[in-house]
Amino acid sequence: MRLVYLGPPGTFTEVAAGRAPGTAGAERVPVASVDAALNAVREGEADFAVVPIENSVEGGVTSTLDALGAGRPLSIRAEVLVPVTFVLAARPGTALADVRRVGSHPHALAQCRGWVAEHLPAALAVPALSTAAAAQVLGGAAGEAPYDAALCAEPAALAAGLEVLARDVADNAGAVTRFVVVGRPAAPPPPTGSDKTTVVASLAEDRSGALLELLEQFATRGINLTRIESRPQGTELGRYTFSIDCEGHVADPRVSEALMGLHRVCPRVRYLGSYPRADGLAPVPPPGTADADFTAARAWLADLLSGRPAT
Amino acid sequence: MRLVYLGPPGTFTEVAAGRAPGTAGAERVPVASVDAALNAVREGEADFAVVPIENSVEGGVTSTLDALGAGRPLSIRAEVLVPVTFVLAARPGTALADVRRVGSHPHALAQCRGWVAEHLPAALAVPALSTAAAAQVLGGAAGEAPYDAALCAEPAALAAGLEVLARDVADNAGAVTRFVVVGRPAAPPPPTGSDKTTVVASLAEDRSGALLELLEQFATRGINLTRIESRPQGTELGRYTFSIDCEGHVADPRVSEALMGLHRVCPRVRYLGSYPRADGLAPVPPPGTADADFTAARAWLADLLSGRPAT
Amino acid sequence: MRLVYLGPPGTFTEVAAGRAPGTAGAERVPVASVDAALNAVREGEADFAVVPIENSVEGGVTSTLDALGAGRPLSIRAEVLVPVTFVLAARPGTALADVRRVGSHPHALAQCRGWVAEHLPAALAVPALSTAAAAQVLGGAAGEAPYDAALCAEPAALAAGLEVLARDVADNAGAVTRFVVVGRPAAPPPPTGSDKTTVVASLAEDRSGALLELLEQFATRGINLTRIESRPQGTELGRYTFSIDCEGHVADPRVSEALMGLHRVCPRVRYLGSYPRADGLAPVPPPGTADADFTAARAWLADLLSGRPAT
Amino acid sequence: MRLVYLGPPGTFTEVAAGRAPGTAGAERVPVASVDAALNAVREGEADFAVVPIENSVEGGVTSTLDALGAGRPLSIRAEVLVPVTFVLAARPGTALADVRRVGSHPHALAQCRGWVAEHLPAALAVPALSTAAAAQVLGGAAGEAPYDAALCAEPAALAAGLEVLARDVADNAGAVTRFVVVGRPAAPPPPTGSDKTTVVASLAEDRSGALLELLEQFATRGINLTRIESRPQGTELGRYTFSIDCEGHVADPRVSEALMGLHRVCPRVRYLGSYPRADGLAPVPPPGTADADFTAARAWLADLLSGRPAT
Repeated sequence: MRLVYLGPPGTFTEVAAGRAPGTAGAERVPVASVDAALNAVREGEADFAVVPIENSVEGGVTSTLDALGAGRPLSIRAEVLVPVTFVLAARPGTALADVRRVGSHPHALAQCRGWVAEHLPAALAVPALSTAAAAQVLGGAAGEAPYDAALCAEPAALAAGLEVLARDVADNAGAVTRFVVVGRPAAPPPPTGSDKTTVVASLAEDRSGALLELLEQFATRGINLTRIESRPQGTELGRYTFSIDCEGHVADPRVSEALMGLHRVCPRVRYLGSYPRADGLAPVPPPGTADADFTAARAWLADLLSGRPAT
Repeated sequence: MRLVYLGPPGTFTEVAAGRAPGTAGAERVPVASVDAALNAVREGEADFAVVPIENSVEGGVTSTLDALGAGRPLSIRAEVLVPVTFVLAARPGTALADVRRVGSHPHALAQCRGWVAEHLPAALAVPALSTAAAAQVLGGAAGEAPYDAALCAEPAALAAGLEVLARDVADNAGAVTRFVVVGRPAAPPPPTGSDKTTVVASLAEDRSGALLELLEQFATRGINLTRIESRPQGTELGRYTFSIDCEGHVADPRVSEALMGLHRVCPRVRYLGSYPRADGLAPVPPPGTADADFTAARAWLADLLSGRPAT
Repeated sequence: MRLVYLGPPGTFTEVAAGRAPGTAGAERVPVASVDAALNAVREGEADFAVVPIENSVEGGVTSTLDALGAGRPLSIRAEVLVPVTFVLAARPGTALADVRRVGSHPHALAQCRGWVAEHLPAALAVPALSTAAAAQVLGGAAGEAPYDAALCAEPAALAAGLEVLARDVADNAGAVTRFVVVGRPAAPPPPTGSDKTTVVASLAEDRSGALLELLEQFATRGINLTRIESRPQGTELGRYTFSIDCEGHVADPRVSEALMGLHRVCPRVRYLGSYPRADGLAPVPPPGTADADFTAARAWLADLLSGRPAT
Repeated sequence: MRLVYLGPPGTFTEVAAGRAPGTAGAERVPVASVDAALNAVREGEADFAVVPIENSVEGGVTSTLDALGAGRPLSIRAEVLVPVTFVLAARPGTALADVRRVGSHPHALAQCRGWVAEHLPAALAVPALSTAAAAQVLGGAAGEAPYDAALCAEPAALAAGLEVLARDVADNAGAVTRFVVVGRPAAPPPPTGSDKTTVVASLAEDRSGALLELLEQFATRGINLTRIESRPQGTELGRYTFSIDCEGHVADPRVSEALMGLHRVCPRVRYLGSYPRADGLAPVPPPGTADADFTAARAWLADLLSGRPAT
C-alpha cells in the first residue's frame, strides 16, 4: 500500500498521514503539490493521498477543493484532525531582535499575523511553498533564504537544524487543520452512526433562489451542514460551485434522499464520499427524519400501492 | 355491481352517479345521507358511493370531508364534475309575486342568494334536506311544505309536478360541483398522466410552522395543490386537519416522495386515493421533478452506493 | 348603543352578545341572518353585530367568513368564546322512544350525530334555521313542526315550553363556539400584549407555491396562525381565498411587517381587525422577532443611512 | 485627496486604482499589504484604499474579506472590474526552454496552472508577494530571484526590464478581478437604480437551518445575491461568517427590510456599503418587491392604523 501526502516531511500533513485510518503499514511518500498527490491516486501510482481540506482559521484549502471538484472522480475515505501549533525558528545565533523577514506558507503567516505584529512590528512576511520548506531553506546555505526566521512545526525546525525563538505563536490557540484521505472511487464504508458526507454542487444558471433550493434539500430532511464553501466556477463573476460537508452517510435514508434531490435540482453534483467523523459526534436527527421514520414511510407507501388499507 | 348515492333522485348527485366512470350497468340506489352512503360501502352493502366533495361557490362539503377522514378507510376511485344550474319552481298556478318563502338545500340557497335578493327581496330562505327533497315536498300535499317555491334542478321540478318560474337563477353562471366515486381500499388504477391524489393530514401539536412544513413536502417536489381545506380536529379551537388534493398519482415518484414526507412529519396521514382528473389537464412538472429526473437520481445513487464512479 | 345579533333569542349567539366586551348597556336586537346583522352595522342601523365565526367541532361559519370578506369593509373589535352544550327537548308528554325526527341547525345536528345515532338510531335529522328556531317551531302549534324533538340550548327549550329529554348530548364535551363583535372600520384598540389579528387574503392566480409564499410572510416573522380557513373564490374550482387569524396586534412590528408583506404578494388583502384574545394567552415571540428586535434593527438602519459607523 | 492601493506599481490593483470612481486627482500611493491599505484609511492617513476583493477564477481574496469584516468599520464606496491578462516574462536572453522555476503571486500561479503544465511541464511554481514583485525581483540583481521567469502584467514586466516570452498565458481568457474602493464610514451615495450592497453576517450558534434563515431574508424580498463567501470564524471548524453582495441599495425598501431582517436573526451583521454596480445592470425586482409595492404597503398599513377603511 502506497500513500502520498503533500510534503515535504515535517509539515502537519505528514502528521495527518501518519494518523490516516486504514493505512497502517503503508509506504508514505511526500509529493510537491495537492494536484500531484491526487493525480498519483488517479493514475494508480498510489492508493491514497492525504491532503489538507480546511483550516479553522484560514478556511477552505482552495487548491484541494478545486482539484477534488474537477478531473477524474476520487473518493474521500476518512478525515483526520490535527491541532496546529507553530514555532518561530531561526539559524543558531539569531536573536528575536535580529528578525526582519519572516517566511512561511501564506496560511501560516496569516495564522500568526497578530503575534508577529506584536513582537516583530517591523518584520516583512515572505511567502514560502510550505512551512517545512521555509524551515529547510532557512537551514540550508547561509544567506540563501529570503527571510531570517521561519514559522513552522517544531519537528520541522529541529530537523532543519534551526533553533526555536518562540513557541505557540499562532493567534488562535485552538487552531485545527482538517485533512482527508482520498482514494479511487469505491463503495463507501458501512455507516457507523457518526459519519459525514461530502459533495460538490453547482447552481442552475438562470434561477433566482437556487442556493436556497439547494439548502432546502438538506433542511427539509433535517440534515445539518458542517462545512459550506463557495468556489467560483471560473467562467464569470457571480457563478459558484458549492463544496459541502453534511452530517450522515449516503446509506442513511435522509441523506440518500437529499443527495437525489441535489441531483434533480442542480445541473452538476459530484459525490465525494461518506466516511466516519473524526470527532465521533452522532447528532440526533430531528423528528420525522430518523432512519425508522423513512423505513415506516416506505412501508406505508408500499401498503398504499398494493391496496392494503393504510390509515 | 351496486352504487349508492346521496339521494333523493333528481339531485345533481344522481346526475354525477350516472356519469361515474367504471360503474356502467351498476344498480343505482339513493340513500339519505353521506354517512349512509359511505357506510354502505364500508359494510359491503354497496360497491361504490357517489358523494359531493366540493362546490365552486360554497366550498368543501364538510360532511363528506369529515366522513372520509375518519372511520374505516375508503378509497376515491374517480371524480365527476357537474355544472350546477338551478330553477325556481312552484306548484302550478303560483306566480313569482306570490312567493314569500323559498326552500332548498342551504348550499343552493347560498348559491342563489343574489338572485333571490333581487327578485324576491322580501322572501324568507327555508332550509330543506336537499334540492330534490324541496321539490318533492312542495309537489306533495298542498300546504304541507313550509315554502312556496323551491330552488332545484329542472328534472327534479318536473318530476315533482312543479312549474318553472325562472331558470338560471344561480348567481355564478359557471358553478360546478365536484363528486367523488368511493370504494373500499384497493390498489390505485394505473397512472394516466392526468391524475389527482387526495390525502388528509393533521399537524403536529406543538410545533410552529407545521403547516408550512406540510406544504413544503409538496412544494419542494414541484407539486401544485388543487384543493386545500382546513377542518377542525374537534378537540379545541385552533387544531386542524387538512384535506388536500394534489396533482399527480401516488405511483409518480414526486408524489410518492411527497406522501412519504407527509408520513414522516405529520402525526397522522390518511391516503384517500389517486385517480384520473375529470378535466384531463396534464400539468408539466417543474424542472427537476419529472419522473425521468427521479429515475436518473435513483440510478445515480445506486452507482454511488456500489462504488461506480459517478460524476 | 345598539347591538344586533344572529337570533332568535335563546341561541348561543345571544349568550355571546351578552358577554361582548365594550357593549355594556347596549340595546340588543336579534336579526334573521348573519348578512342582516352585518348589513345593519354597515348601514349605521346598529353599532355592533355579534356573529359566530368558528366552532371547535364544525369549523368555520362559512356565511360569516364570506360576508366579512366581501362587501363594505367592517372591523372586528373583540371575540367571545361560549361553551356549547345541547339538550334534546320535546313537547311535554313525548318520550325518547317516540322521537322519530330530530330537528335543529345543521351544525347542531352534526355535533350531536353520535349521540343521536346511539340513542335514536332510526331517527331522521331535519334541518332548521337555528337551534332556537327548532325549539320555537316545535313549541308552536301542535303538528306543524316537521320533527318530534329539537337539539337546542336549555334556555331556548324552556322558553318554548318544551321538556328536556336528555342533557349534554353533544359528542364532544369541550365544544366551544367563537363569536366576533363587529363594528364599522375604526383604528384598532391599543395592543394589550395578548392580541389577535384577522385578515382575508387571496392568492395570485398563476404562481405555484403561492400559499407557501403567503404563509412565509408569517413564518419568517415568527408569527403563529390560530386559524386558517380556505374559501372558494366562487369563480372556478381550485381558486381560494384564505381567512386567517394570527397572533399579535397590527401595531406590533412583526405583525405590521407581515401584513405589509401580504399586501405585496397577494392580489387582495382585507384587514379585519386586531383585538384582545379571549383566552388571554401571550405567546413569547421566537428569537429575533420581539418588538425590541425590530426597534433595534430600525435604529441600526438609521445609523447606516446617516453614515454613523455601525457594527 | 490621498488614495492607497495594494502595491507595488505595475499590478492590476494599480490599474484599478487609476479607474476608481470619485478619485480623480488623488495622490496614489502603493502600500505593502491589504491590511496596511485599510489601516491607512482607518488612521486617516489616506482617504481611500483600493484592494482586490474577488477574482472570477480564484474566488474571494481572503485577506481582504477578513480585514473588512473585522477591526474598525469601513465603507465600500465603489467597485472596479479589471480584466486580467498575464504574460510570462524573463531576463533578456532567457529562452522558454530555459525556464525551470516560475514565480508569481499564488493567485496568478493558479490562474496560469494549465498553460504552465502544458508548456513547462517540469517547471516548479514559486510563490511571490505579488505579480509585480515577482517581475521586480527577477529584474534585479542577477541570480537573486528564486525563479527564472515571472507571471505578471505586461507593463510590470517592461518596467522591470524583462522580455515577454509568451502572452495571454491565463487558462481562462475572460478572467476578471473585482476591486473595491474603501473609505471611512459615511452615508451611502444616492441610489442609482443599478447598485450593490455588501454585508458580513455570522450565524447563530446553536440553531439548525441558520444559513437557510439568513438567505430567506433576501429571498422573501426577491433579492438576488451576486456573491456569497464563507469565512471561518476562526474559533472552531464548522463556524462561519458569510460575506455577501446583494442586488440593490440600502435605501431601496426591499434591501432595507432584508438588512433589518439580518440584524434580527444574525448575532452579528456588519454593513459595508451600497454603491453603483460596475456592470451597470439594473435587475427588475420580482412581483411584489418593487419600491412602489413597499410604498403602497406602507400607505395601506397607515390607513389600517388610523382606522380609515382599507380593502
